[in-house]
Amino acid sequence: MALPVDVPVALLGYGTVGAAVDRLLRESADEIERATGHRLRVVKALVRDPGRERAYAPPEDILTTEIGSIVEDPSVGVVAEVMGGVEPTGGYVLDLLRAGKSVVSANKQLIARRGAELFAAASEHGVQLRFEASVCAAIPVVKVLREALVVTNVHRVLGIVNGTTNFILTRMGEGAAYDEALTEAQRLGYAEADPTEDVSGLDAAAKMAILATVAFGSRASLEDVLVEGIEGLRPLHIQAAADLGMVVRLVGAATLVDGAVDVRVQPAFVDSHHPLAAVEGAFNAIMLQGDAIREITLEGPGAGGIETASAVVADLVSVVGTVGTGFLQNDPCWRTLARLPPGEIRSLFYVHLEVDDRPGVLARVAEQLAAEGVSIEKLTQRQTDAGAALDLVTHECAAGAIAAAAGAIEALAEVQAAPTVLRVISERGV
Amino acid sequence: MALPVDVPVALLGYGTVGAAVDRLLRESADEIERATGHRLRVVKALVRDPGRERAYAPPEDILTTEIGSIVEDPSVGVVAEVMGGVEPTGGYVLDLLRAGKSVVSANKQLIARRGAELFAAASEHGVQLRFEASVCAAIPVVKVLREALVVTNVHRVLGIVNGTTNFILTRMGEGAAYDEALTEAQRLGYAEADPTEDVSGLDAAAKMAILATVAFGSRASLEDVLVEGIEGLRPLHIQAAADLGMVVRLVGAATLVDGAVDVRVQPAFVDSHHPLAAVEGAFNAIMLQGDAIREITLEGPGAGGIETASAVVADLVSVVGTVGTGFLQNDPCWRTLARLPPGEIRSLFYVHLEVDDRPGVLARVAEQLAAEGVSIEKLTQRQTDAGAALDLVTHECAAGAIAAAAGAIEALAEVQAAPTVLRVISERGV
Repeated sequence: MALPVDVPVALLGYGTVGAAVDRLLRESADEIERATGHRLRVVKALVRDPGRERAYAPPEDILTTEIGSIVEDPSVGVVAEVMGGVEPTGGYVLDLLRAGKSVVSANKQLIARRGAELFAAASEHGVQLRFEASVCAAIPVVKVLREALVVTNVHRVLGIVNGTTNFILTRMGEGAAYDEALTEAQRLGYAEADPTEDVSGLDAAAKMAILATVAFGSRASLEDVLVEGIEGLRPLHIQAAADLGMVVRLVGAATLVDGAVDVRVQPAFVDSHHPLAAVEGAFNAIMLQGDAIREITLEGPGAGGIETASAVVADLVSVVGTVGTGFLQNDPCWRTLARLPPGEIRSLFYVHLEVDDRPGVLARVAEQLAAEGVSIEKLTQRQTDAGAALDLVTHECAAGAIAAAAGAIEALAEVQAAPTVLRVISERGV
Repeated sequence: MALPVDVPVALLGYGTVGAAVDRLLRESADEIERATGHRLRVVKALVRDPGRERAYAPPEDILTTEIGSIVEDPSVGVVAEVMGGVEPTGGYVLDLLRAGKSVVSANKQLIARRGAELFAAASEHGVQLRFEASVCAAIPVVKVLREALVVTNVHRVLGIVNGTTNFILTRMGEGAAYDEALTEAQRLGYAEADPTEDVSGLDAAAKMAILATVAFGSRASLEDVLVEGIEGLRPLHIQAAADLGMVVRLVGAATLVDGAVDVRVQPAFVDSHHPLAAVEGAFNAIMLQGDAIREITLEGPGAGGIETASAVVADLVSVVGTVGTGFLQNDPCWRTLARLPPGEIRSLFYVHLEVDDRPGVLARVAEQLAAEGVSIEKLTQRQTDAGAALDLVTHECAAGAIAAAAGAIEALAEVQAAPTVLRVISERGV
């Protein structure tokens, strides 16, 4: 189906992002026509209350409360979903795809939760579902994965995909306490009044589920992501990282190991020479590692209304630029890969122990590590008020081995508190 | 023109990159078909000597010595130029475009020198000329600029686009002398036996000319790029940067100021919190600054046979995915912008002076700066064997003002050597 020169666009939603999409399409109509040969114009926008006052007032005749008036409008070839929510949004998007309309979505939760079903519907009906804006706003990681790295066999995606936690961790690296950094993030608008979704790692988990799905071609659902937040981090962890030449970051990691997939979001120690260590404040970055490219890292602001709108418009432009060629009409979930048992992922690990300062403690700790086949790369011991603190970095080992060793160590009489175990992301990409 | 399911591809050249493109297309035929609906197969490869032994032996029947057999073959819809050189390559590419074939080129010199002419021919004949591999190998900066940032009004491109010099500067930052670092780069294969093209900044200049052209839509030729190499850098500059919390990098900068374009490649001091400061060794990075996106940085290996081939294949995939839609058939040089007089670009600057250690010297230096309207942000003075060394960082000022002040300072009797003036890239993106 070739598109006419004038391409009517519909929006689902006309909030901050929707209004910005409308504005960008108007202001950049010439640029878009130059690049695509088409003019895109918003002709309909689905809203709940057309009478509501809006910061950017839309032409009144485009507002509608009826999804049917968009689904059934044969002139509308492409729709941008910027209303958010999983229901009723998911049903609307499904109806649009089934009606032969390509859809662009900015909706992380929708794609993470119902992506597989929506991708299948798009593929079946010969249309596209694009979702760049659903992950890290204007950072074009989905486009790069799906279009630039088609032949690259990406086997690992490492990402700092939540700006709130990265801001908090950056400030903690500069000496702030967790609560202080969180309050500052809230004051600056980087964190919500209820910051749970961000600090628990759930926001990052949805993004990593999407990225893993696209990178590996197999559905990773939210439930497949192992998630740990940053609430438990204390200044002593930040200091221990600094002493080792590292920084603490909330790292999303999607890894393909021998045909099985592991997706996790956890605080980790990142070597200061690693590209992810340089990501400061509310910025996001995603590193893609693959056969032909070694690694490519994309960094930028991962949130923001205009940034998100810019990604939506880029997707609209890309739909218009590829429609009718068969490009990206494939189902991104084209295979079913097993989930790697979480204990099997291999990495370096950092371990913090608080122990009684008595002869033989170190030997017993080392014994438990050795019993699980974990060997030590670096170890420092120092006096504390209550005894001694041990900070160590292991050689590469399985997550299950270090967890078992930590459990055995915790059971030792001389050990005062549960050990802290954090993944270490080194220069070698392990 | 819709493409058939099987898309015959021709190569110009069958060296390291050409052979890798052929191999990637064979090995990834399924991935490509899944993404595009098409199978790409190399049916012809132009070589000078079909009898030559090759590391990756091509099927014998694809080699040809006659460009005409490709230009006149109506079945060939897309051609990858991986032979290098400006002539006869430019003539071949022009003939192919005029024959209605889209062309993908990995040739930095060709695009930098004859891009405008080739773009115009592609546009006129309704085909695409893609050139991702000509700039920083597999880093998809051209795709991101042309497809993801269509509506973004990019106003500045900052890049570390030469791996050789970045390796040398990284090693100098770790304490190596220039000659030592260069020898090491040569031993590791990062630098040629004759390193002039890299260390003089000329290689980076060609890449920046291409990026400026694409980002601003106006032709920037190689001659428009102000180029300074790294040969003059001494350990004292590296040390001075470190003392200021900065690193020295060879920075390409393309800037759009009030409708005029400035493109330059110069060693610069980069604040250690700036994303470009984190780029180490032979890696490349490009930061794109624009209205809607603030800034997006792409980092990765900027060279390598397989990395380059991967970018060529990505371009082939993108051509196949967009053909017939009108996408990117526009001439990227769609407007003519003036060149900004080189003295008008504004920045912070670092200045190093070696002066007699006598009363009044600092006053006279400060006077010359003030006379040109240059004010000082930071200054350190220290004793040397021969007198005193002054290291200072200015507030933002015009390059012409600091050059004039440096000239006046050099003429002072107390000044022992020509001042060093280097641009400072701060966190604020100035």
